[in-house]
Amino acid sequence: VNGTQQDGSPPTAVVGMVGAGQLARMTQQAAIALGIELRVLSKDRDSPAVDAGARHVAGDPCDMKSLLRLAEGCDVVTFDHEGVPPALISRLAAAGHQVRPSPAAQLLAQDKGEARRLLSRSGFPVPPFIEVAQGDVEAVRSFAAAHGWPLVLKAPTGGYDGRGVEVITSAEQLASSPLAAASTRWLIEEKVDIRQELAVLIARRPAGWWQAYPVVETVQRDGICHELQMPGVIPAALAVEAVSLAASIADGIDATGILAVELFVTGDGGLVVNELAARPHNSGHATIEATVTSQFENHLRAVLDWPLGDTSLLAPAVVTVNLLGPVGGVDLARGLPAALEDPSIHVHLYRKAHRAGRKLGHVTALAETVGEAQAKARRAAACLVAP
Amino acid sequence: VNGTQQDGSPPTAVVGMVGAGQLARMTQQAAIALGIELRVLSKDRDSPAVDAGARHVAGDPCDMKSLLRLAEGCDVVTFDHEGVPPALISRLAAAGHQVRPSPAAQLLAQDKGEARRLLSRSGFPVPPFIEVAQGDVEAVRSFAAAHGWPLVLKAPTGGYDGRGVEVITSAEQLASSPLAAASTRWLIEEKVDIRQELAVLIARRPAGWWQAYPVVETVQRDGICHELQMPGVIPAALAVEAVSLAASIADGIDATGILAVELFVTGDGGLVVNELAARPHNSGHATIEATVTSQFENHLRAVLDWPLGDTSLLAPAVVTVNLLGPVGGVDLARGLPAALEDPSIHVHLYRKAHRAGRKLGHVTALAETVGEAQAKARRAAACLVAP
Repeated sequence: VNGTQQDGSPPTAVVGMVGAGQLARMTQQAAIALGIELRVLSKDRDSPAVDAGARHVAGDPCDMKSLLRLAEGCDVVTFDHEGVPPALISRLAAAGHQVRPSPAAQLLAQDKGEARRLLSRSGFPVPPFIEVAQGDVEAVRSFAAAHGWPLVLKAPTGGYDGRGVEVITSAEQLASSPLAAASTRWLIEEKVDIRQELAVLIARRPAGWWQAYPVVETVQRDGICHELQMPGVIPAALAVEAVSLAASIADGIDATGILAVELFVTGDGGLVVNELAARPHNSGHATIEATVTSQFENHLRAVLDWPLGDTSLLAPAVVTVNLLGPVGGVDLARGLPAALEDPSIHVHLYRKAHRAGRKLGHVTALAETVGEAQAKARRAAACLVAP
Repeated sequence: VNGTQQDGSPPTAVVGMVGAGQLARMTQQAAIALGIELRVLSKDRDSPAVDAGARHVAGDPCDMKSLLRLAEGCDVVTFDHEGVPPALISRLAAAGHQVRPSPAAQLLAQDKGEARRLLSRSGFPVPPFIEVAQGDVEAVRSFAAAHGWPLVLKAPTGGYDGRGVEVITSAEQLASSPLAAASTRWLIEEKVDIRQELAVLIARRPAGWWQAYPVVETVQRDGICHELQMPGVIPAALAVEAVSLAASIADGIDATGILAVELFVTGDGGLVVNELAARPHNSGHATIEATVTSQFENHLRAVLDWPLGDTSLLAPAVVTVNLLGPVGGVDLARGLPAALEDPSIHVHLYRKAHRAGRKLGHVTALAETVGEAQAKARRAAACLVAP
């Protein structure tokens, strides 16, 4: 047409992804290799995934027409966040579009109350909890009488990076809590004695075939993940238990794609389930360099029902440090050459505008020991986000 | 503007690349991680690199105005092919644009006669050769009298994948050769007794810091590279010699970015230089998965004068098989799931339209032994390009 020679070949598949953040950006990198066309739905063109070459479908993830526009011509629709109302996902599926993970699996990742109820009912270890209506302080008092203060108050939906979670030490604090006033439902949990935080990523195909990634240990500060170690420094038996637990949950909720299961190691060395995420997950960013197949490629392969790739580790120790926007601004371009002075460092920048505490990128280091990987990754991160 | 929230951060650098083929496509994957904006100059939007998200600058690589349009706003201009006339590259540099590699280094990669003359003059091992004007059969006869038939006839410029190279066994064949009739200048060489073909990739920064990749052994058929092994199965001393030779050439021509030096191992176990390419190269595709830093990332880092990444191997044996368009068409989408049944295989598809013999993609396998890697890569390739 107009002298333009058509010289391309059709994509091997067309995948629609709701959301265009850094998870979609790194999914786009994996899509390029496999000849997959990735289309992303977001309001703004100016997004990490579109910047990386994903096709932009302009629209609102909470609007049915936008979702249908995304799904049109896609082999499958998947997600890089939990912001789509489950009812809309169900309607999308009912309209004949392939949606993976399923609306039911999505719901569990979206609603902490739903997840707690289902997991508890199915016998998975979760902290003691109750769900109460806003203002039902009496129910909270009686739960505290049984389990003791402090408690953890959670908004069942919409929270991330520590938002929507608050530790409550007394009935007085509860009464004056902004979160308690803002949520229409509350999830109240016993405050777990957390010794370590782990994450297990499972890649799972529709018929049930799955592959687990090595267990990751995450280091949180103020509810935000700062640093990740792969594999986590835990006893082998605990690693097996964590993977079994996560895979069993993935089977139980019939997850497709990547399912991330966040776990607490409690004071007595046991495991309880914290949260689920039914999508590629921050805890798996190291898989880009540190395992044979990245979580992003395996998410695509799983939702397309293609064979899964090997999730084996390529190095004894791997550390990822998230690049969080420092207070007072940042110039990543200035810090990048200094970060790269360590020839073994891997840098990923998301092209997101700076905000204090926002994840702007991450660095990953592979090494022979955890200490060495940690030192390398922290040094590079400091070059990039030093104020 | 118009309700669109500006939420991105500026790129860490803007790199212009002349050409938008698979080399630019894989460079785009590396650019995403580092937050680099890659702009590619090509006539057609419908190209492997633009498909992968590189910004398209429409224009002719042989047109000065197009080159200036590409260079505008770029930190550096580089190349994914040798099709730009050196005079235009010089003019681009003279106009104040950073061009890497330099016009002089480009010229050697473009013109086999120039390269032979310079390398020979500098004492590097090259096959005996002469350059003759078209039709000067007498000069060829006397060269043959000294070196014997057969000879190799080469068009000094424009050849690739075996095009522009012909083995000539007699004066009669020379007289009737289509290549001899088509070229205005001829490069005539003694036919080397080739025992093995090697390639050494050097990543080199402007001030001279360089890193070599492990020596690759290439298997050609009809002048097209079919299969690559990294590291090549050669004695350690020969590997050292090959790297020294390549690095010395890179220093001698002041290469910047990736310089690929193709070498022949001759019957007596010595090395002679075959060709140079001053850009990422087919022989280095395995570096995406098999070395710490890929040739594409190191090309970007080198031309931006950023520190180079580690070029160490991550596996004992690595084999890449090029996916060449078979006679009679191909359906890569159909073969892909079967290829991925081996969980360790890495597939790269370029989204190029099918033509017999055209490079449509490649597969890479890492393994403990060459035989294992070869079997894996060949099996996957057969799934994808079986007729």
